[in-house]
Amino acid sequence: MKNLNEQDLPKAISTYNIEALAQLVVLVRERIIETIAKKGGHLGASLGTVELSVALHHVFDTEIDQLVWDVGHQAYGHKLLTGRAQDFESIRDFDGLSGFLSRAESKYDSFGAGHSSTSISAAMGMALSQKFKNNGAQAVAIIGDASIVSGMAFEALNHLGDSKADVLVILNDNAMGIDPSVGALKDHFSKGSSSIQSFFESFKIEYSGPIDGHDLSLLLESLKALKSLKGPRLLHLKTIKGKGLYAAEKDQVTYHAPGKFQPQTGQRFEIKKSFLKYQEIIGETLFELCNKASNVKVITPAMSTGSGLSKVLIEFPQQCFDVGIAEQHAVTLSAGLATQGDFVCCVIYSTFLQRAYDQIIHDVAIQKLPVVFCIDRAGLVGNDGPTHHGVFDIAYLSCIPNIEILSPANGQELQHLLFELKAAHEQGLLNHPVALRYPRGYSELKNLEGHVKIKSMRQNEWLKKGESVGIIASGSMHKIVDEFIAQRSDNERFSVFNLRVLKPLHSDEIITFLKAHQTVITLEDGVLKGGIGQSIKQLAFDQAYQGKIYCKGIEDDFVPHGTTSILFKNQNISVDALNVLVD
Amino acid sequence: MKNLNEQDLPKAISTYNIEALAQLVVLVRERIIETIAKKGGHLGASLGTVELSVALHHVFDTEIDQLVWDVGHQAYGHKLLTGRAQDFESIRDFDGLSGFLSRAESKYDSFGAGHSSTSISAAMGMALSQKFKNNGAQAVAIIGDASIVSGMAFEALNHLGDSKADVLVILNDNAMGIDPSVGALKDHFSKGSSSIQSFFESFKIEYSGPIDGHDLSLLLESLKALKSLKGPRLLHLKTIKGKGLYAAEKDQVTYHAPGKFQPQTGQRFEIKKSFLKYQEIIGETLFELCNKASNVKVITPAMSTGSGLSKVLIEFPQQCFDVGIAEQHAVTLSAGLATQGDFVCCVIYSTFLQRAYDQIIHDVAIQKLPVVFCIDRAGLVGNDGPTHHGVFDIAYLSCIPNIEILSPANGQELQHLLFELKAAHEQGLLNHPVALRYPRGYSELKNLEGHVKIKSMRQNEWLKKGESVGIIASGSMHKIVDEFIAQRSDNERFSVFNLRVLKPLHSDEIITFLKAHQTVITLEDGVLKGGIGQSIKQLAFDQAYQGKIYCKGIEDDFVPHGTTSILFKNQNISVDALNVLVD
Repeated sequence: MKNLNEQDLPKAISTYNIEALAQLVVLVRERIIETIAKKGGHLGASLGTVELSVALHHVFDTEIDQLVWDVGHQAYGHKLLTGRAQDFESIRDFDGLSGFLSRAESKYDSFGAGHSSTSISAAMGMALSQKFKNNGAQAVAIIGDASIVSGMAFEALNHLGDSKADVLVILNDNAMGIDPSVGALKDHFSKGSSSIQSFFESFKIEYSGPIDGHDLSLLLESLKALKSLKGPRLLHLKTIKGKGLYAAEKDQVTYHAPGKFQPQTGQRFEIKKSFLKYQEIIGETLFELCNKASNVKVITPAMSTGSGLSKVLIEFPQQCFDVGIAEQHAVTLSAGLATQGDFVCCVIYSTFLQRAYDQIIHDVAIQKLPVVFCIDRAGLVGNDGPTHHGVFDIAYLSCIPNIEILSPANGQELQHLLFELKAAHEQGLLNHPVALRYPRGYSELKNLEGHVKIKSMRQNEWLKKGESVGIIASGSMHKIVDEFIAQRSDNERFSVFNLRVLKPLHSDEIITFLKAHQTVITLEDGVLKGGIGQSIKQLAFDQAYQGKIYCKGIEDDFVPHGTTSILFKNQNISVDALNVLVD
Repeated sequence: MKNLNEQDLPKAISTYNIEALAQLVVLVRERIIETIAKKGGHLGASLGTVELSVALHHVFDTEIDQLVWDVGHQAYGHKLLTGRAQDFESIRDFDGLSGFLSRAESKYDSFGAGHSSTSISAAMGMALSQKFKNNGAQAVAIIGDASIVSGMAFEALNHLGDSKADVLVILNDNAMGIDPSVGALKDHFSKGSSSIQSFFESFKIEYSGPIDGHDLSLLLESLKALKSLKGPRLLHLKTIKGKGLYAAEKDQVTYHAPGKFQPQTGQRFEIKKSFLKYQEIIGETLFELCNKASNVKVITPAMSTGSGLSKVLIEFPQQCFDVGIAEQHAVTLSAGLATQGDFVCCVIYSTFLQRAYDQIIHDVAIQKLPVVFCIDRAGLVGNDGPTHHGVFDIAYLSCIPNIEILSPANGQELQHLLFELKAAHEQGLLNHPVALRYPRGYSELKNLEGHVKIKSMRQNEWLKKGESVGIIASGSMHKIVDEFIAQRSDNERFSVFNLRVLKPLHSDEIITFLKAHQTVITLEDGVLKGGIGQSIKQLAFDQAYQGKIYCKGIEDDFVPHGTTSILFKNQNISVDALNVLVD
C-alpha cells in the first residue's frame, strides 16, 4: 500500500502502475475529506480533481514540467502528492500550509494563485520561455469552466492560439464556480463535443474531449497522448464537484467550503451564531430596497452566496444580476445602468475590485456616475491569506477624484448608510460614486432594526470625549477600540472619533480633534501607505500640530494567512498594542 | 445642399432621403479631413465610420436611443452630426471639444470613453434598465475588431447572450487597432460569414453580415431591419480605416493619428525634431538588449507603434510579443516568463496599466517576480485628456509591497536604468518587480550614448546645493526645475534633489535634505493624494521638521485635455508658480 508520506513523492508516482495510482486516488481523497472535515476550508473543488492530480503527476515530470493550477483551491491533491501530506493538517493555519498554491511554499507550485483565470497567461509565459530554450519542458494550465470565461482567460486564449505556444489547457468542467456557472457559453460546455469544439477551435486551439475526469485510465491515456503533441491543446474534463462525498456532490454550493463536518456522512457541524454577518445585512437590506423600488439594481460577479445575495438574485431576476467572474464588466455594466437613473449597488470583494480598477476610474469616476460599490471583505480576511486580504482599497480608491469612501463602524451603520444613499439618490442628490466598505464576518447585530430615521451617517462622529489621548478609528477597528476602552480603568483619558468618511477627508473636524489632544492614535484595516493615517499626518504637518501621532494599519508587506485575530496582533493592531502606546 | 451647421441636427436627419444622406456623408468626411489636416489628431478611425454615423442618426432616434461608441476616436462623424460642427475646429484644444466622447460635452454622448472595449457593458446596462421600464428605447454599441477581443468585451458578450438584453452590437471591422489586429480570432473576422457567425452564436448573439460599411443604402436597410428585432444582435461591418483619403487608406498605421497634413493629398507635414522621444529611447534600448541576450522578453498590449517597439517586434518575434488589447494577460504573461528566469519588460501606458492592477498585485508583486514595467506616458499626456493622463500610477503602485518605483529625470537616465536593471537581473540581484515611469514625448537627447559605465541610477542624487530652499523633483518635473534655476539670478539659494527612487522612499536621505532647508518644494507629475509629496510631509511630521513644505502635483480632480504646458500651468506646476512660492 502506498503512503502519502513517502519521501520520494512526487517523483515516484511516475513509476506507479495503474493499481498503485488508483490506491493513491483513494488515499488522497480520504485525506482531503478527513482533514477538511476537521478544519473547515475549501472542499468541493479539490475532491473533483483527485484523479486528475494523480494522473498529471504520473504523466508529467514536475521536476521540469510546469503545472499551473488556476485559483489553487482545486489543488489540495497536488499538495498531498508533492511532499506536503505531513503538514496537510496545518492548511490555512497561521504558519501552516496555504489554502492556495504558493511558489514560496513548494517548488512544485509553479505559479501561485488565489484569484481566478490567471493560469493560461502564466503557463503561456512559461511555454514561450521554454520554447526558445528548447528544453522540452511542458506547461499545463488547469482551469475551471467558471474561470475560463473570465476576460483575462479569454485574452490568453486569443493570444495562445495565435502564438502556437506549447500549452496544454485542461478544462476542469464541473458546471460550477462557487455558485453555478453563468453566461451564454456555459450551455456549450454542457452540450459538449461539437459546439464546444468549434468554440475553442475558433481560437486555433486543438480541442479534445469531453472525457470523464474521474476515469483514471482514460485520463492517463489522454494526457499521455496530449503530452506528445505540440502547440495549443485543450482537454475537456467533465468532473463532479465534491466527488466522493455524497453530501458534497448533492449540495455543491454549500460544500464549496462547508466548515467542519462529519467525514463519513458529510453532516455539517453548524455553529449557531446569534449575530448577523455583514453579508446578511447587505443581502437583507438590498432585498428590501429592491422590493421597494424597481430602479434599484444589484450586480455581483460570481459571488452571490458569499456576498449574501442568493435571495435577492432569486427573487428579483430583473434587478439583480450575477455576471460571472467578470469584474471589469460588472463595474461598467453598473455604470451603464447608472446613466439611466438607476440606483446601482455593485457588490464586490475588496480584493476582486482590483480587477476593475480602470473601470472605476474611466467609466464611473470620470463620469461622476452614482454607482455604490459595496466593498465586501474589506480589511484582513483571515485564512485565505495574501491573495485575498482587502487591504489596498482605501489607498487605491483615495487617489481617484469624485469618489466618496465610507466605512461604517458596525452593521447598524452599514444598513443605515445604504438606506441613506438610496434616499439621497431618490432626491437627485447622489451625483458621484460611493465606496461602502465592510469586513468579512459577524457584526454586532442580532436583528435588523430596519429603517429608523436618524441623523446622517455620511459624516464623522466624535463618540467619546476624553482628556489627553485621541483615537481616530474607522470601520472594523472600532471593535478593538471598544474593547480597549472597556478594559481601561482610566478611560476618561481617551477620546474616540468615528471616522466614517475616508474621502473626502473632513479636514476641519480632524484638525479640531488633533488640537484637542497631545497624543493621537489612528487605526485602519488597510495599508498604511496611501492610507488614512498618512493623510492625517499630512494635515498635522500642514497645521504645525505639535503632538504625537501613532498610525496603526497594515505594514508595507503582504500579510500571510491565519485567523484575523492572530494577523491583527502580528500587525500590532490590538488592545495590547494600544495599551503599550498609552501606558 | 445640407449643412452641418443646421440647428436641427441630429433630429432632422431622420427625415432626410437617401440623396440628402449621401450628401451628408460627403460633408462629414470632408470636414473631418479638412479639420484634422489643420489640427492633427485621430483621423483613420472616424473616416471609416462616416456612412455608419449618418445611417445610425437616420435610423435611430438619439433623443431616446443610446449610441455607445467604443473608444470614441471613431465618433467624429457623430460629433459633427450632433450640433458640434461649429466647434469642431476646437477639437482636442484646451476648453475645446474633446477628442473622445464625453457625457459632459453632449447629451448625445451616452457614455464617455477613451479606453477601449467598454461599450458593450455600458450599452447592456442601459438596455437592462430600459427593458424594465419598457420604454422602447434602443441601445447600440459600436465597437472595433481589435476592441471586441479584449477581455472585458468578452465578459460582456458572455453575459449579454445569456441575459437576452436588447442590445445591438455593431462590429466595425477594419482589421486594425492602432496597429494591425492580432490574436487567433482575427482570422475569423477576415474569413467572414460562417466561422465568425458560429463564434458569435456561441454567445447566443444573433449575427448578421458581414456587409460593406461604406454602402449607405445597405447600411440603412440592415439597421432598419435590426432595429425592429429584440434581444442580443450583432451586425458585422467591413470598413476601411482612413476611407476617403488615399494616403490614409494605404498607410493605416501612420494615419491613425498622422499629425498635420495636406488635406487633398494627405501628405504629412513632418516636423523635424532633433530630439529623441522617450519612446525611441525605450525602443532602441530594448532592441539592443534583445539583440544581446535571448532571455530578454518584451510585451506590449497593442501599442507597439506608440511605445516605439515596431522594430523590436519585427526583428525579435520570439522575444517581443504584441498581445493585443489585453492588459491583464500582458501582465500575467510577463509574470509567467519571469518565473523561467527571463528579463521581462512589460511596456504599457500608465493609464492602461490601470487595466491590470490586480495582476500587478496578485501575479507579480506577491510572488516578487522581477518584471520590469516600462510605464509609458506617465504624467500628463496632453490633448487626449482625462481618460489618458498617467497621473495615478505613483499612488496606485506605492501602496503595493515589494515593488520598486523609479522615475528617471531624463532620457539618458532612462536608458541607463534599463541597462542597470538588466545587469542586476543577470547577476541574480533583481528579485522584485520594478516600475520605470517616463513621460510622453521628447527627451533632452539627440543621440543615444549607449552603455557607459557610470554610478548606479537606482538611487537619488543631490544635484545642486543651495542655501535655503530645497527642491525635490521627480521625473519630468526636472525640466521645469532646470528652467526655473536657469532663470533665477539668486540661484545660489536653491538646492535640487533628484528623487529617482519613489519607492522605497529613502527616508534618511530625504530627512537630511529637509533638515538642510527652511523651505522645501516637492514636484511630481502625478496626483497629490497618495503621492510623493504626501509621503514626504508624513516623514517631516514624524521628524518634527519645523520648516515649510509646498507640494506641487495634480490636484484631486480629473485634468481636462489641452497641451501639457497649459495643463501644468493650470495645475500651478510651472516656473511662474515656483517663482511665486519663493519670492
